[in-house]
Amino acid sequence: MPACIFCAIVAGEAPAHRVAEDEHVLAFMDLFPVSEGHTLVIPRAHAENLFEIDEASVRAESALARRLALAIREELAPDGLAVYQANGAAAGQTVFHYHTHLIPRRAGDPMGFHGRARGDPEALAAMAARLSARLRDV
Amino acid sequence: MPACIFCAIVAGEAPAHRVAEDEHVLAFMDLFPVSEGHTLVIPRAHAENLFEIDEASVRAESALARRLALAIREELAPDGLAVYQANGAAAGQTVFHYHTHLIPRRAGDPMGFHGRARGDPEALAAMAARLSARLRDV
Repeated sequence: MPACIFCAIVAGEAPAHRVAEDEHVLAFMDLFPVSEGHTLVIPRAHAENLFEIDEASVRAESALARRLALAIREELAPDGLAVYQANGAAAGQTVFHYHTHLIPRRAGDPMGFHGRARGDPEALAAMAARLSARLRDV
Repeated sequence: MPACIFCAIVAGEAPAHRVAEDEHVLAFMDLFPVSEGHTLVIPRAHAENLFEIDEASVRAESALARRLALAIREELAPDGLAVYQANGAAAGQTVFHYHTHLIPRRAGDPMGFHGRARGDPEALAAMAARLSARLRDV
């Protein structure tokens, strides 16, 4: 298995609740969700951060994040949606494979982007299926 | 002048310390910087948030953010770089024209993305000129 956990997910060697993918990027549920629907988008090719990712991947990533945002809105109707991408531990990065957080927000939610508890696997699988189905319509 | 302050900046009717622009997007210094080098990237066409922005703009926006990140790293060598894009007041959005924050971080910095004090105009102008010059090399 690759040393990088997100590379292992890309390779299908570590489990993930996948929502969408194309030749450049992959989206799956965050295992430590801050809120219901918390999703990550990553490039398939390993890049530690925004300084390393290639332009084609970052463009594909933003396009998928946009579609996912629409699916999240349609499916969950949150009050807001936070999009966060951290580069370096000083910015809060904890997995060193580029990733963008999409975090549905309700009014009054705390503003963090790392959850404290592992999400329930069945709930994450069900959410991945709901968002994946909704993505076909947006 | 447009009612939207970022549309006014796009139209050249409100002042801004511009760093870069192309046919789709514009980058300029945040007027209430969280840290030295805090930059915003916006689409020229008005879109309130990630739910409204068109795909071409979001792709162009991510490509410029990537180049700006490289310029910030070369020019300022921060410990990290936070990239944040808020949709809705519940996610911390305060200007309702889509924008992405690029915030250089030093170890131990607070994690917010709205500064409390207006930046010094001369310092912002000087930083815009430094980043703009550096962008030509990345």
